[in-house]
Amino acid sequence: MYDLILKNISRFITLTPEEEQYFISILKSKKLKKKQFLLQEGDITRHEYFVNKGCLRTYTIDEKGQEHIIQFAIEDWWTGDMYNFLTQKPARYTIDAIEDSELLCLEKNALEELYIKIPKFEKFFRHLLQNAFIAGQSRIIDMISLSADDRYCNFVTQYPSMEKRLPKKQIASYLGIKPESLSRLRSNWLKKMKRA
Amino acid sequence: MYDLILKNISRFITLTPEEEQYFISILKSKKLKKKQFLLQEGDITRHEYFVNKGCLRTYTIDEKGQEHIIQFAIEDWWTGDMYNFLTQKPARYTIDAIEDSELLCLEKNALEELYIKIPKFEKFFRHLLQNAFIAGQSRIIDMISLSADDRYCNFVTQYPSMEKRLPKKQIASYLGIKPESLSRLRSNWLKKMKRA
Repeated sequence: MYDLILKNISRFITLTPEEEQYFISILKSKKLKKKQFLLQEGDITRHEYFVNKGCLRTYTIDEKGQEHIIQFAIEDWWTGDMYNFLTQKPARYTIDAIEDSELLCLEKNALEELYIKIPKFEKFFRHLLQNAFIAGQSRIIDMISLSADDRYCNFVTQYPSMEKRLPKKQIASYLGIKPESLSRLRSNWLKKMKRA
Repeated sequence: MYDLILKNISRFITLTPEEEQYFISILKSKKLKKKQFLLQEGDITRHEYFVNKGCLRTYTIDEKGQEHIIQFAIEDWWTGDMYNFLTQKPARYTIDAIEDSELLCLEKNALEELYIKIPKFEKFFRHLLQNAFIAGQSRIIDMISLSADDRYCNFVTQYPSMEKRLPKKQIASYLGIKPESLSRLRSNWLKKMKRA
């Protein structure tokens, strides 16, 4: 149950067996069925989440009722609403499960205590945030400077397993295009791959 | 010269006078005249930068030669290409000065050594990254879910001093709209403010 998260952490810091035990002791597990909510816009959450199994999406709903997906999270990814978690202001996003999912939850106070007891977790979360920040910047660049064709191509190249796994409607929402355009983008991309 | 950066750091960690001295000793200063480059797409940088004075913009140029602004940075902000800095792969952005600017530069090796000598800087940069990540997510939401009118309104509300200071063309590029639309958005916003 904890193999994946410990491997995830070992990418940036090395824990002693005692530290691993302590870390595991503060985690709580949570199961979500497909379509169940982890967090709804306006909630106040006190947790960050590690995906052990499944797939979730973070999204917002505009005034016209249109969903806009900010992020997907599959196994070995962290998710949550950082803004909400840090400021304890109402969440700006909704997070729900696209597949039956299993999560490990890290509570805010437990995390603050973890930073004090095992300060190298500062380093771990600094690295995690660096990568998340870089990914966010890439997404911004893609959105302001790329055509729908190029955005689709980047998505498939960066997240090949997600493209197979996610409903087309969700991918379209993430890329900011109409679902009916997706098959055209996919066919353009396949043609491009053949030429390459 | 170091007052602003020390105040910036004191928001998240407390340094002893000796630690302050050590930190200051590893900083280098750099001046840029308006329109001078700090970093060009393709360069490999080994620095993160703190803005002591002035204003810079981070942008990318698409295949049609169109500039897309990712971020502005004014006094008391950090800037740089995190991806480039961390991976030492060629920069994906260009950064130049919109006004005559004064920067403090933190070199990659010096920063790695700083983390070892004064580990609480892990905490400082974790906080800085948390805020940058949240700002990036807000920008993504704004771009996928808001109208140009609402994007303009958010920008003016969040960064009132920047709106007065920046050339209209730069604001339009940041918001992903045509410069000629900006006066219409501004007039809509003023009407909205009057009604409020």
